[in-house]
Amino acid sequence: MQRILEGIKILDFTQYKAGPMGTQILGDLGANVIKVERDKGGDLERSFKTFGKLTQEGDSPFFLAMNRNKRSLGLNLKNPAAKEAVYRIARDADVVVQNFRPGVLAKLGFGYEDFKKINPGIIYCSNSGYGLTGPYVSRPGQDMLAQAMSGLIMMNGREDSPTPVATSVADGATSLYLTIAILGALYHKKCTGEGQELDVDLLSCLLAFQQEELTAYLNLRPTPEFKRAGSGLAAPWNGAPYGAYKTSDGRYIVIGVVPMDKMADLIGAPELAGYTDTELAFEHRDKLWEIIQGKILLNTQEHWVEYMLSFDVWCAPVNSYAEVVKDPQVAHNRMLHRMEHPALGEIGVVAAPFRYSSTPAQYLQAPPLIGEHSEQILQEHGYTDDEISRILN
Amino acid sequence: MQRILEGIKILDFTQYKAGPMGTQILGDLGANVIKVERDKGGDLERSFKTFGKLTQEGDSPFFLAMNRNKRSLGLNLKNPAAKEAVYRIARDADVVVQNFRPGVLAKLGFGYEDFKKINPGIIYCSNSGYGLTGPYVSRPGQDMLAQAMSGLIMMNGREDSPTPVATSVADGATSLYLTIAILGALYHKKCTGEGQELDVDLLSCLLAFQQEELTAYLNLRPTPEFKRAGSGLAAPWNGAPYGAYKTSDGRYIVIGVVPMDKMADLIGAPELAGYTDTELAFEHRDKLWEIIQGKILLNTQEHWVEYMLSFDVWCAPVNSYAEVVKDPQVAHNRMLHRMEHPALGEIGVVAAPFRYSSTPAQYLQAPPLIGEHSEQILQEHGYTDDEISRILN
Repeated sequence: MQRILEGIKILDFTQYKAGPMGTQILGDLGANVIKVERDKGGDLERSFKTFGKLTQEGDSPFFLAMNRNKRSLGLNLKNPAAKEAVYRIARDADVVVQNFRPGVLAKLGFGYEDFKKINPGIIYCSNSGYGLTGPYVSRPGQDMLAQAMSGLIMMNGREDSPTPVATSVADGATSLYLTIAILGALYHKKCTGEGQELDVDLLSCLLAFQQEELTAYLNLRPTPEFKRAGSGLAAPWNGAPYGAYKTSDGRYIVIGVVPMDKMADLIGAPELAGYTDTELAFEHRDKLWEIIQGKILLNTQEHWVEYMLSFDVWCAPVNSYAEVVKDPQVAHNRMLHRMEHPALGEIGVVAAPFRYSSTPAQYLQAPPLIGEHSEQILQEHGYTDDEISRILN
Repeated sequence: MQRILEGIKILDFTQYKAGPMGTQILGDLGANVIKVERDKGGDLERSFKTFGKLTQEGDSPFFLAMNRNKRSLGLNLKNPAAKEAVYRIARDADVVVQNFRPGVLAKLGFGYEDFKKINPGIIYCSNSGYGLTGPYVSRPGQDMLAQAMSGLIMMNGREDSPTPVATSVADGATSLYLTIAILGALYHKKCTGEGQELDVDLLSCLLAFQQEELTAYLNLRPTPEFKRAGSGLAAPWNGAPYGAYKTSDGRYIVIGVVPMDKMADLIGAPELAGYTDTELAFEHRDKLWEIIQGKILLNTQEHWVEYMLSFDVWCAPVNSYAEVVKDPQVAHNRMLHRMEHPALGEIGVVAAPFRYSSTPAQYLQAPPLIGEHSEQILQEHGYTDDEISRILN
């Protein structure tokens, strides 16, 4: 089977999420991703406790989520022999990616200028909290901090409690923008032979991710009041019925955009019919939400989903992960993939979400142990056993 | 200035968000994006009321957010002359993108097979709610429905109220995965000349976006109880202090991962020091959150952000959009871009969030009026004035 990025070599110095989630996609597309990790401890995500726990064998499930299709080269980057090995590996690499704080990796001798000397066509992508320059360059950058600074937390949750989004959306968005930036640079390099430097930051990516809300803020006059719904069950920029509703069996459904007179008929609530004007409906959305919630509470989740779908109304069940993993469409799309891990046995991971007719993503390498491929990678670059032991010591 | 996708022609049949937000990135990178819209009404996003309103001149700010760097070709696709024009334009196009419900565009004569006959190397990308096949193929697909079905809403918000995320995260994630899929396919086409079909859906993209949480669900034993924090101010998979806290001036801050003994010292709460074990801290996170909240409430947002940053603790203010647009780092990164719109005058849009050293994103074309470039585009493809009037009638 053909792989899009076959032959593309990536030196990946990233850890945590935003970098690894991006480079995993490049690996899924066939790139040769060499994960350069500290020989002691490795990627800090390996020891990130989720729900206070690691897997029974001592790995973080979050690490497992984002590091398949990479090989691990465990190094002490302060060892001069290891340093030379990195330079040698970089000679014919296409991309270096790193997400240390600005300036840190360059101080170790692995900045863009260092690699450019060895390999003028290299693409060097830095990922940081706020960018490589500017007033916040020395601040700690992290997913929830970027969520807070981007305006997202202020919009999320109930009126009385701005709430961080329940998935690390700044890291997630950044991982994808970073992948786009690298694929764009690889395309340019393919056309021109030229490399370049890329600067991708969490805060900017999360602003771009909120381009709708921010463009509304910048262009609506008068500027609308951006308040969370009192109920906290709706999107802050949309009126009822748009939102989540509890059903008689203690479960939830969501209902999307529906004209209010149609909604009035559907649930038998004629008092809604006077709110077909969307501005009026937005103004009174808490009240309207209460009316609709009163009706929805009279029947089960299954009833409402079937009933609404029979009228082609935007409606869905609010699933837990336990329900997600049993969903027939999720199975049909083969989104949950199982692979053999060298220490953990069979593990489950989430597949790439795009389906190519000729060049499908492939899952060939489980998330590696620290340094699992150090010798193999060094051998590929012509090192002898003696040299390898100097590099790895 | 060089543009990465200079000379790449994209026929863009998408509307709403997930498609347009992706094709805008391709336009930012220099592709020639031809937005094929209904001559009457255009992209339905144009009339999407945000906070119940449109801009004063009758455009949706959400449309403005996602349609720069595209030219609009307004057509009635059932007019045979218009149909022929689409085929002629597609002869040397590189990509067709569409997000109609599965099968709908093919019925109009614009499926993959139709374009492949004219142009064997074409890349044809479909975006749908759940995929082009499978049990949910005929269901309505939309951002909040995908959020609900993916497990995200069940994790977001307070314990007693699962809450849709305050930005359309399924559309956003999909727009980026779709862009990645297309860039990958363009790279493959550059190397081999081959086109192919791509199938990208909201539900799968949002599962991939939650790869951390789902991988935890699939691999932790026993399966952890996935409950929202009682306070709703924290991430559901992480213990205190991780979360948002109210300050004495009625504002909020977030505090990231901090060892509990360090936190005890920092805020003068020695009772925290017994919770250095992360599993224990996770179990008692609501109680610990309350203790920390009690202390944070004693001083202002500004105080706490400065104080915590002076110890290099992950901390940030929870900003409103009013604060975001005045943020000096946002300005430094030039994330808010102003451009001249043919009807609205100067508008504000959000820039691309990646900075290339040689091939920066450029903003050359404001979000177009419906059919603003119909004649120009048809002329470029050799049509005479008479023919053009038949096509546009």
